[in-house]
Amino acid sequence: MVQKSSNARSHRFSSDIDPDVLNFSESVSFDYRLAPFDIQGSLAHAHMLCAVGILSAEEEQLIREGLEQIKAEINSDVFVWRKEQEDVHMNIEMALIEKIGAVGKKLHTARSRNDQVALSFRLYVANELEKWKASLKQIIDTLLTLAEKNQHIVIPGYTHLQAAQPVSVAHHLLAYVAQFDRDSARVDDALKRVRVSPLGACALAGTTHPILPAMTCEKLGWTEHFVNAMDAVSDRDFLIESLSVCASIGLHLSRFCEDLILYNSQQYRFISLGEKFTTGSSIMPQKKNPDVAELVRGKSAEFVAALMQILTLTKALPMSYNRDMQEDKRPFLRASDSILDCLSLMDGMLQTLQYNEDAIEQALNHGFLNATEMADYLVRKGMPFREAYHLTGSLVNLAEKQETDARTSPSLNSLSLETLQEYSNLFESDIYEYLDLKKSTARRNSAGGTGDKAIAEQLLLFKQRLAKM
Amino acid sequence: MVQKSSNARSHRFSSDIDPDVLNFSESVSFDYRLAPFDIQGSLAHAHMLCAVGILSAEEEQLIREGLEQIKAEINSDVFVWRKEQEDVHMNIEMALIEKIGAVGKKLHTARSRNDQVALSFRLYVANELEKWKASLKQIIDTLLTLAEKNQHIVIPGYTHLQAAQPVSVAHHLLAYVAQFDRDSARVDDALKRVRVSPLGACALAGTTHPILPAMTCEKLGWTEHFVNAMDAVSDRDFLIESLSVCASIGLHLSRFCEDLILYNSQQYRFISLGEKFTTGSSIMPQKKNPDVAELVRGKSAEFVAALMQILTLTKALPMSYNRDMQEDKRPFLRASDSILDCLSLMDGMLQTLQYNEDAIEQALNHGFLNATEMADYLVRKGMPFREAYHLTGSLVNLAEKQETDARTSPSLNSLSLETLQEYSNLFESDIYEYLDLKKSTARRNSAGGTGDKAIAEQLLLFKQRLAKM
Amino acid sequence: MVQKSSNARSHRFSSDIDPDVLNFSESVSFDYRLAPFDIQGSLAHAHMLCAVGILSAEEEQLIREGLEQIKAEINSDVFVWRKEQEDVHMNIEMALIEKIGAVGKKLHTARSRNDQVALSFRLYVANELEKWKASLKQIIDTLLTLAEKNQHIVIPGYTHLQAAQPVSVAHHLLAYVAQFDRDSARVDDALKRVRVSPLGACALAGTTHPILPAMTCEKLGWTEHFVNAMDAVSDRDFLIESLSVCASIGLHLSRFCEDLILYNSQQYRFISLGEKFTTGSSIMPQKKNPDVAELVRGKSAEFVAALMQILTLTKALPMSYNRDMQEDKRPFLRASDSILDCLSLMDGMLQTLQYNEDAIEQALNHGFLNATEMADYLVRKGMPFREAYHLTGSLVNLAEKQETDARTSPSLNSLSLETLQEYSNLFESDIYEYLDLKKSTARRNSAGGTGDKAIAEQLLLFKQRLAKM
Amino acid sequence: MVQKSSNARSHRFSSDIDPDVLNFSESVSFDYRLAPFDIQGSLAHAHMLCAVGILSAEEEQLIREGLEQIKAEINSDVFVWRKEQEDVHMNIEMALIEKIGAVGKKLHTARSRNDQVALSFRLYVANELEKWKASLKQIIDTLLTLAEKNQHIVIPGYTHLQAAQPVSVAHHLLAYVAQFDRDSARVDDALKRVRVSPLGACALAGTTHPILPAMTCEKLGWTEHFVNAMDAVSDRDFLIESLSVCASIGLHLSRFCEDLILYNSQQYRFISLGEKFTTGSSIMPQKKNPDVAELVRGKSAEFVAALMQILTLTKALPMSYNRDMQEDKRPFLRASDSILDCLSLMDGMLQTLQYNEDAIEQALNHGFLNATEMADYLVRKGMPFREAYHLTGSLVNLAEKQETDARTSPSLNSLSLETLQEYSNLFESDIYEYLDLKKSTARRNSAGGTGDKAIAEQLLLFKQRLAKM
Repeated sequence: MVQKSSNARSHRFSSDIDPDVLNFSESVSFDYRLAPFDIQGSLAHAHMLCAVGILSAEEEQLIREGLEQIKAEINSDVFVWRKEQEDVHMNIEMALIEKIGAVGKKLHTARSRNDQVALSFRLYVANELEKWKASLKQIIDTLLTLAEKNQHIVIPGYTHLQAAQPVSVAHHLLAYVAQFDRDSARVDDALKRVRVSPLGACALAGTTHPILPAMTCEKLGWTEHFVNAMDAVSDRDFLIESLSVCASIGLHLSRFCEDLILYNSQQYRFISLGEKFTTGSSIMPQKKNPDVAELVRGKSAEFVAALMQILTLTKALPMSYNRDMQEDKRPFLRASDSILDCLSLMDGMLQTLQYNEDAIEQALNHGFLNATEMADYLVRKGMPFREAYHLTGSLVNLAEKQETDARTSPSLNSLSLETLQEYSNLFESDIYEYLDLKKSTARRNSAGGTGDKAIAEQLLLFKQRLAKM
Repeated sequence: MVQKSSNARSHRFSSDIDPDVLNFSESVSFDYRLAPFDIQGSLAHAHMLCAVGILSAEEEQLIREGLEQIKAEINSDVFVWRKEQEDVHMNIEMALIEKIGAVGKKLHTARSRNDQVALSFRLYVANELEKWKASLKQIIDTLLTLAEKNQHIVIPGYTHLQAAQPVSVAHHLLAYVAQFDRDSARVDDALKRVRVSPLGACALAGTTHPILPAMTCEKLGWTEHFVNAMDAVSDRDFLIESLSVCASIGLHLSRFCEDLILYNSQQYRFISLGEKFTTGSSIMPQKKNPDVAELVRGKSAEFVAALMQILTLTKALPMSYNRDMQEDKRPFLRASDSILDCLSLMDGMLQTLQYNEDAIEQALNHGFLNATEMADYLVRKGMPFREAYHLTGSLVNLAEKQETDARTSPSLNSLSLETLQEYSNLFESDIYEYLDLKKSTARRNSAGGTGDKAIAEQLLLFKQRLAKM
Repeated sequence: MVQKSSNARSHRFSSDIDPDVLNFSESVSFDYRLAPFDIQGSLAHAHMLCAVGILSAEEEQLIREGLEQIKAEINSDVFVWRKEQEDVHMNIEMALIEKIGAVGKKLHTARSRNDQVALSFRLYVANELEKWKASLKQIIDTLLTLAEKNQHIVIPGYTHLQAAQPVSVAHHLLAYVAQFDRDSARVDDALKRVRVSPLGACALAGTTHPILPAMTCEKLGWTEHFVNAMDAVSDRDFLIESLSVCASIGLHLSRFCEDLILYNSQQYRFISLGEKFTTGSSIMPQKKNPDVAELVRGKSAEFVAALMQILTLTKALPMSYNRDMQEDKRPFLRASDSILDCLSLMDGMLQTLQYNEDAIEQALNHGFLNATEMADYLVRKGMPFREAYHLTGSLVNLAEKQETDARTSPSLNSLSLETLQEYSNLFESDIYEYLDLKKSTARRNSAGGTGDKAIAEQLLLFKQRLAKM
Repeated sequence: MVQKSSNARSHRFSSDIDPDVLNFSESVSFDYRLAPFDIQGSLAHAHMLCAVGILSAEEEQLIREGLEQIKAEINSDVFVWRKEQEDVHMNIEMALIEKIGAVGKKLHTARSRNDQVALSFRLYVANELEKWKASLKQIIDTLLTLAEKNQHIVIPGYTHLQAAQPVSVAHHLLAYVAQFDRDSARVDDALKRVRVSPLGACALAGTTHPILPAMTCEKLGWTEHFVNAMDAVSDRDFLIESLSVCASIGLHLSRFCEDLILYNSQQYRFISLGEKFTTGSSIMPQKKNPDVAELVRGKSAEFVAALMQILTLTKALPMSYNRDMQEDKRPFLRASDSILDCLSLMDGMLQTLQYNEDAIEQALNHGFLNATEMADYLVRKGMPFREAYHLTGSLVNLAEKQETDARTSPSLNSLSLETLQEYSNLFESDIYEYLDLKKSTARRNSAGGTGDKAIAEQLLLFKQRLAKM
């Protein structure tokens, strides 16, 4: 899952031009990863050139075989990348010409580096976005399983990091499912604009050759191609959009990790995480440092930074292609590797998550988590909401003062019916059942609520969406 | 178009609580702008409460009339905003209770501030995004008119800010149409996730009341409501998405302005901008400082910053609502005001744009803009592309050296047929017509190209899309 | 402390030029706050012009009196700001000419708007930075008092949010003192480069008038003036530096608030914050929502965004002044207001902070906080560190398993001397005193440590630094 | 200059723990670059441990020899880095124990990974900042030489990218010297806070061992050590400060490159850059794409992003060390490599810069660059500035209208004395000499101006500062 460093980079780079300038301006040391997509693009281009008569069938076949051979060499790590040929595209074109001679030179007809680069990168980005979707699907699946399994456990729900109302563990987990579900829809929307073929834009003006961009596009399995050639070679807004989705996923993960780090701490002890995903210091084995969760939280900064880099990079660039734009690749390559790692590790970690019901039970006793229940009870009996709200407040104050035994937490349940009725004659003996945390949680069955029925509906809905992903 | 400061803010704020804390934590001084949306949400909520029997028809009517009256007071600027009631929502609720008494207190049944705030903000954001779309539509319309009118003018197309190939003015303008067209599609996609009603999520857990979130949602004219209550009150990813689209529009504008500032400079003189949109220093009247274009370019930084603020704000926040999230409004309010101003001013400025054909003509003589034409000519006659490319290079070098007269720029056209044929016998007398810049530009008719036919197709396509917006 | 909205803005703006363009490009609605500094700069300029004979003594006096009068009008809020005069500088210059006639026109000799704006803004920024320093000094003072008063209280020190070692409350608070102390030094360093007078740079090239920039500079109370006129009017790196310091302060505050929010939660209950700085929901009075701490944490995003805005704004601007740079003011004005509010509110909140020793005592029993002590004990008796580390680990494991009574937390102290000696004969009966948390904390007296003596030294050092601030 | 990829990374990593988690959490693949600094820190630590009696002299010698041997192995690239030992620090410690046995285990006495990591990184950062200073010094030296050599050439000075006033080439170049000079002072200030030894802070609480942090600090050649142990291990504000300086340098470079890209374009042709630093397309040899300048401009986005990453990373982290902080290294390592590359390449490029005086001469004829001169002339003869300003404006208008011959640009010089005197009788025949662009430029000798004397003073001052760097 975690990206393996390719041996490709370890091949000898040779150069006889100024090495400092070359080292500064070459891109093959990182864009070599676009090789399969450069070849895919060239195959589609050759197919089209043949269809319109620019290449003969024999020429196309020669080119296709040459490219397939190069692809095989790259896959088996015997291809020699030459830094002095600057980028992945020129490396492959030169290798092709070496292999098949003059015919290789015809491949670049009705194409420029500008549209060729844009296409390879779009193919790469589209491929990565597909992986993001698969990873989101996987983590949603894991969360649904976890939620279903633990839906009977009630934990404090927090606002302002203060205990507010009790909720099912499933309710908490499904909040994250909802986030990842939206992120997945965002990836789909981004893909609509990534999967637009720029091939045929040439340098910026199109060409006089009778090319068919629609045919190249179809060969790539895409349905849309560029409308304006200048735009096709100069805009990278598809990266802003993709990295914005990446940042959204990353920030959702950062919030989830924050919860896991808290729940895993000595002050909470709500959960245990698999040993594989924590480090116990051997001197302090009680310390289960949630390293993976912390690293995932920290990585969110990388996604934000990658997005900021592309935004700053493209600010106020004049039309059309500018060399600055070469700097668009590294932030995306790194961010995409990282987000896939994060989703994968997070998924693995969630599969090991265990709830500590004892510790949770203890926490539920604190914080008057059923105060809202009491107010609701009064509203149901006819009291206007704002009045019920204030009356409950007074009773919480009363309960806090009455409390003396240090072992027991102050609680509304401990107030006698008589006491309650002094405050309002709407109180009847059914109030105590109403105040029961588990029962009251189970009862919050309004759509999207934490009640048993509502959770079942949420689970059903998300499972249906998952099935369609 | 430019936002008018509302007198609303000038009303007396009174308070008897600690003024420093109040000044720091109140939000009504900026969220008062959400008032119409708070009322819209409350009307929908009351409608639903009545439908499920929590409010009687009389109660709903009282509430509705009270709210309408408050709305009228706000519109006519007589409503008194009280800072000590902290936010727009409490100001309106308190005013309602003052007006209609105890019934007003029932409105907050089965609702919390958390879902109420989220709904009002979503309604506000959706309304702003609709305005963005209208402004994008307007600027596209202006650009199409401008492109159509000036499509006969050929200007140098640049890469690396170096003259590369001649293009129609329309080709250049339509590149920006393509960008704004995509941005408009992005707004549509963002709207799908903004227009999700959170009402009924209550604090974070739903409620035991028999509410119908779907009915409230329908009353708002939306089709989707939240799936999980905790998610509904705690996530602001719709802002990340919206501000990311805003940044995309802003960066497109920054690039367009960069071009306009260049083309308007003494070194280019390609265009003139309306006096209204430039400032001539009275001491240097030749100076047509393109202030509006510069300001629009500078505003792009604001959109990037607004996005950065929301990203940083939400990083690692624990579930669910945290007060930090109050800081989500100002960046969006400001950014949305600014992007609307920018689009509106830019549109106005473009309507005054004039092309200086003389200056453009002069610029076309520089830079061997037809070098690619010569290479294409040779390819058509059968020379492999890479060979044609090198041969043309040699001829450009030759032309540069032969040149002696300072008044005339060096040019491929000045090479004699004999000279050309010394280099390749593929050259024939038709080469000179081929080298003609206007004719060659007109001929680049591959899809998306700058040729006459290709431009006509682009215009047609974008007009069709505009009609559907 | 919290910035009061000035009535200044509410004065009538009138205009007969295009209102949209004017609204978009005017700056007086926010740069009116620079008025005292514009006047201070003009007074210094007039003084110098008089010294070099460009103004007569009478003319200088007229100008001085006119400006003082305008200043008084502004202070008493009767000055009428006119939007159609665009910025604060032109408003004041026009008012001066209205008041004193033709002599007023001489003030702009050997000055341009470019150096005038830069000076006013530098004076404003320097003044704000002085306020930052005062606020940092104040919060350090409060923290030192709080640390001194509570140094006897021992709390768990955390790494990875896991209990690691016990520390004095003072140790924790002094960590933040160290941060604010560094930030104060950063402000000093930034001030060295803010307090550089650009006056005399004129538009970008200096002047042929015999002006004395050094004299103007001295009159302003500064010691350094610009070296190069083009740089003086075009660079805003002093803002990047100032806002970077602001972000540093803001992030330190965000971390401090995170700690306070945690310690104030039901799961910790280490501290109580003054009611003024928390909001108790009246329905859930146990909820002490730490709103102020949350808002301060959230504001850190604003400082990061302000820095990002200036960075993006200035990226790739050509020499020298560009109108984009007008957008430099609002982010600084807002960020400076906010950081002063945050420091002030934080200071107020810290003055109300109370430690709950009971809850802290309970937390100390968890987490084997003395494990490191045991390892240290063994090292002192001659065992190599890595061995002592592993042996202690085994004993912690042992203690965890032996534990049966749910009321008592597992602990190293509960292991008998016999048991310990089975693991190493270096253990003697003094080990138990060694394991005492308070005693062991008191003993960590290496420089900068948490021991009593080390804390006393830290307090002394920071008090000395504070005295010198 | 450009960073060479180290073979170190190519050594075999082996692991028997979960490879995904290991790949995600290990840092040795990038922090191996901190090795010399880890060893330097360990040597200082051992020295101090020996001085206070924790290590014997023999033990210290053994450790020293072991570490020196490891250093030699690393330098000669035979050291085997093991990913399963996670970071550079543990790799070296384990290798030391393998080499010298049990004594190696004593090295970690009174030290934790937390203070060890912080020290190594601070040593690394300080070393990089020294390199930044050297590179800034080098580029300033180059600029001073270039300025001195070309100070006689007068170019248009721009505001709003509009020709404003003529300036010496030296004036333009020295503006950038002033920027880099300030940046160098910023590096010095940052270094004061980077060079603070955290060693002895241990995990977060100091130690009971009688260590002497001041001695370790002195051994490292630094003068200051931490005051508070918790702060020492948890804060990374020195990175925010360092990366903020890096962003400042990078943005200065981006602006300089923008100027170079403009001046190198066909529309300006003010300069030529060495072939090594541009790419000529062989088909369009007139195209001298300023690739290096574009890439340097683009890299500014990387520095901004690195700063944003650290800011986002540290936002709201609780005390003290959190694993998130491991993500602090990569952005700094990359940014520092890049800024050194940028400064070095920029320096090389500037050494090849040639001014094209013919093209510059032509540009000077446009734009009424002497309008300010005329106003100054009138002011000297007694006219109030604002009047002189308006009168000149009228004359510029007049000149523009009179002009008929297309070959000559409209100019104030072409107005006859009679015409001028119709407008003001202050005009005399000396006005024409006054309007001469070169002479007038030479005359702007106010401090920091573009006049000959003022330039000489600027050059002298910057040379003196350079000598002291």
